[in-house]
Amino acid sequence: MAPAHHLLEDHLERLRTLLKQRKAEELEQLLQQLPAGDVPWLLDRLSDEEQERLFQLLSPEEGSDLLEGLSEEQASELLDNLSPNDAAQVLDHMPSDEQADLLGRMSPRRAAEVLEHMDPAEAADARRLAQYASDTAGGLMISEYLAYPEQWRVGDVLEDLRANRQRYLEYDVQYTYVVDDQGQLVGVLRLRDLVLAELQTPIRELMIPDPLHVCVDTPLQELRDLFHQHPFRGFPVVDDQGRLVGVVCHEDVEEALEQAAQRTLMKFTGILGGEELRSMPLRLRSLRRLFLLSTNLMMDLVAASVIAVFESTLSQLVALAVFLPIISDMGGNAGFQAVAVSMRELALGLIRPGDFFRVAWKEIQVGLLNGLGLGVLVAGIAWFWKGDPALGLIVGVALALNTVVAVVLGGTVPLALRRLRVDPALASGPVLTTLTDMCGFFLILWMASRFLLGS
Amino acid sequence: MAPAHHLLEDHLERLRTLLKQRKAEELEQLLQQLPAGDVPWLLDRLSDEEQERLFQLLSPEEGSDLLEGLSEEQASELLDNLSPNDAAQVLDHMPSDEQADLLGRMSPRRAAEVLEHMDPAEAADARRLAQYASDTAGGLMISEYLAYPEQWRVGDVLEDLRANRQRYLEYDVQYTYVVDDQGQLVGVLRLRDLVLAELQTPIRELMIPDPLHVCVDTPLQELRDLFHQHPFRGFPVVDDQGRLVGVVCHEDVEEALEQAAQRTLMKFTGILGGEELRSMPLRLRSLRRLFLLSTNLMMDLVAASVIAVFESTLSQLVALAVFLPIISDMGGNAGFQAVAVSMRELALGLIRPGDFFRVAWKEIQVGLLNGLGLGVLVAGIAWFWKGDPALGLIVGVALALNTVVAVVLGGTVPLALRRLRVDPALASGPVLTTLTDMCGFFLILWMASRFLLGS
Repeated sequence: MAPAHHLLEDHLERLRTLLKQRKAEELEQLLQQLPAGDVPWLLDRLSDEEQERLFQLLSPEEGSDLLEGLSEEQASELLDNLSPNDAAQVLDHMPSDEQADLLGRMSPRRAAEVLEHMDPAEAADARRLAQYASDTAGGLMISEYLAYPEQWRVGDVLEDLRANRQRYLEYDVQYTYVVDDQGQLVGVLRLRDLVLAELQTPIRELMIPDPLHVCVDTPLQELRDLFHQHPFRGFPVVDDQGRLVGVVCHEDVEEALEQAAQRTLMKFTGILGGEELRSMPLRLRSLRRLFLLSTNLMMDLVAASVIAVFESTLSQLVALAVFLPIISDMGGNAGFQAVAVSMRELALGLIRPGDFFRVAWKEIQVGLLNGLGLGVLVAGIAWFWKGDPALGLIVGVALALNTVVAVVLGGTVPLALRRLRVDPALASGPVLTTLTDMCGFFLILWMASRFLLGS
Repeated sequence: MAPAHHLLEDHLERLRTLLKQRKAEELEQLLQQLPAGDVPWLLDRLSDEEQERLFQLLSPEEGSDLLEGLSEEQASELLDNLSPNDAAQVLDHMPSDEQADLLGRMSPRRAAEVLEHMDPAEAADARRLAQYASDTAGGLMISEYLAYPEQWRVGDVLEDLRANRQRYLEYDVQYTYVVDDQGQLVGVLRLRDLVLAELQTPIRELMIPDPLHVCVDTPLQELRDLFHQHPFRGFPVVDDQGRLVGVVCHEDVEEALEQAAQRTLMKFTGILGGEELRSMPLRLRSLRRLFLLSTNLMMDLVAASVIAVFESTLSQLVALAVFLPIISDMGGNAGFQAVAVSMRELALGLIRPGDFFRVAWKEIQVGLLNGLGLGVLVAGIAWFWKGDPALGLIVGVALALNTVVAVVLGGTVPLALRRLRVDPALASGPVLTTLTDMCGFFLILWMASRFLLGS
């Protein structure tokens, strides 16, 4: 189709040819020349066997570079196609936080197999990090940092930096930490202060004592707040005994926040587990979606039972059937807008479950305004279509009232779910649509039976 | 309600009292003691006058610290309540990228007023950054960086660092850049290399020449790819003449990605402009929501016109009316799951508009499986309810077919919209529900009129 797509297809063709011919060097060159944005697309189109061969041909360093450029979902899918030994070698070259994330996505059995093939030191690090929940400082921290005993002098530190220069290059060092004999964090040492100090100065005198730090179980939202308050690149992370165990970096926190927002979007639309790529097995994709769909179907049937109760009303006034799906759809739409605003305000810390009545009041105002506008619109159309002002009035009033109900429920249901410790993103949708459908169907059908048919 | 909420109310009470008594020092203490996560909530509940007084009592530095801890929406709302002079003083103390973001949210007239009251150097910086789109390297970069002429020696640089230490502390320096006489970027100098070098060495010999850099118009997605490929904290940004104009940092890119994901979620649910806080004026909140709702209502009416065509069928078989909203809702649900997966895969670079047929084929498979499951379920229920196997069959087949249509449309509509350069998050919803409603209503009513009533 578009020229860009032709070019992608050409790259894919060439990638496949090189894989078939097992040309490691040329593969490496090709991958380096490709725009980074094209790599996920190309890898997604390789068969399982081609993916496996690719990682066998690349060096473990190149393989890990390749994986680091991908989303976590895709990287974890690719790793699953490798033998435990190949997977271990690639993982050995990744930063410790990504090791832990990718191992955490494997089945416990597969993870144990891969860990056995990893470098013992790397495996120990990964095991240690894997014990922390992924949305806490422990789960987000890296273990690549520098810490020196408080007895050292500036000269000792500079000598160590010089001697291990090559290895530390990977660490991207800006701060170094100072620990006591028990490994407890006692200070932070800025590289720029080291530069300007006498070699004989004890680092204890140079360090900033009692530095800001977080605990392994500090949650993501609190980390976000801390980074917004302080212009630091990272915070040292201590365990429950105050021992330094890692560093959590600003960019990793921001990345985790982005992933959380993406997962919310997916859950909102009802994919169980919040994740699906079309390269996943059909059975898995189908089941993950079916779970929510069948729940929805059951709740739809409950809502539709209101219609069944009014079957005789409908048979006398079939025109009402035209407006039932409209009432249902508009209630859902208006309610979802309110859900989205509440979810956003919850995420920003602007509302808490205790703000129930404030939110309800704010939504009632919007609901009355918008309900009035929409109600007048639909009333006019119904009147014009059937020439019956009474029908128009009833349809309009039902839509207006249902809009108010929908926005109040939409605004407050996420708060109630949060209070009940249910994920609002996952449960708001079905709860909301069932309630607004039942209310909307009842309003229009009851009013029609009462005022139009006089029954 | 919960104890935490009581505590918040107490803090709010105290904040209001201190504001009334104009106790600047105690206010400052209170704000520093509060958990960072509580501050957005508390500020959101202050009246416009209280907010204005708060910023008058705080020093500009404290005011800017306070704003930096808030979301951009909330910070921009707060600034709107200050006089141009107060707003300018607070902005003077913020990093250049945030200055530009907040100024960009003001009306052009208000922004000009505020810029006039700002420090001339800060204002010039902010004006320069404001010319770049917010989702490009130019819009995300900061202008707080260090650059030295290529003729300088290590000793000159160290002396400058020492002399301006206090100011550079704010810069959080890790790299310094080397530029030629025209201001063009020629190299990057690592602080750790400076530490270990002779004072007489020219920095030209120490620098990494021709470093990786981006242009002011490099888009957000490309920046994300670059940061995933390279373990750097920031990239130098050059203008179209190769002159160094700023630095774009990893955490700012990740933060922008998170904001983009949040906006997508809001657009998805149909809030025009993608942003609403309940502290905004009622008229604005109402209108932003009404725009999409009235569009939806029109499209619902179009879809419902299919029902109107089959009114005589419905009058003979009123039970069908019960299933119309179910067909509509299930089509929407199944379709939205496919929309969400396509949006995610588009964002991850796994599909492009050219992958239309691949996506359609993958969705047909899931649609057939899930359609079959849901169809059998609803057919059984309809049969059981009305004791009519033929009715059950028709309802089940209609739901199954409509599920296939819905997921294929849901999967491909975002690709088509992307090709047409329309934002898929904004337009997928209404387009999808109208099409699946029309299709679903037609399927069930036409099959009923053809096979049940034989007309």
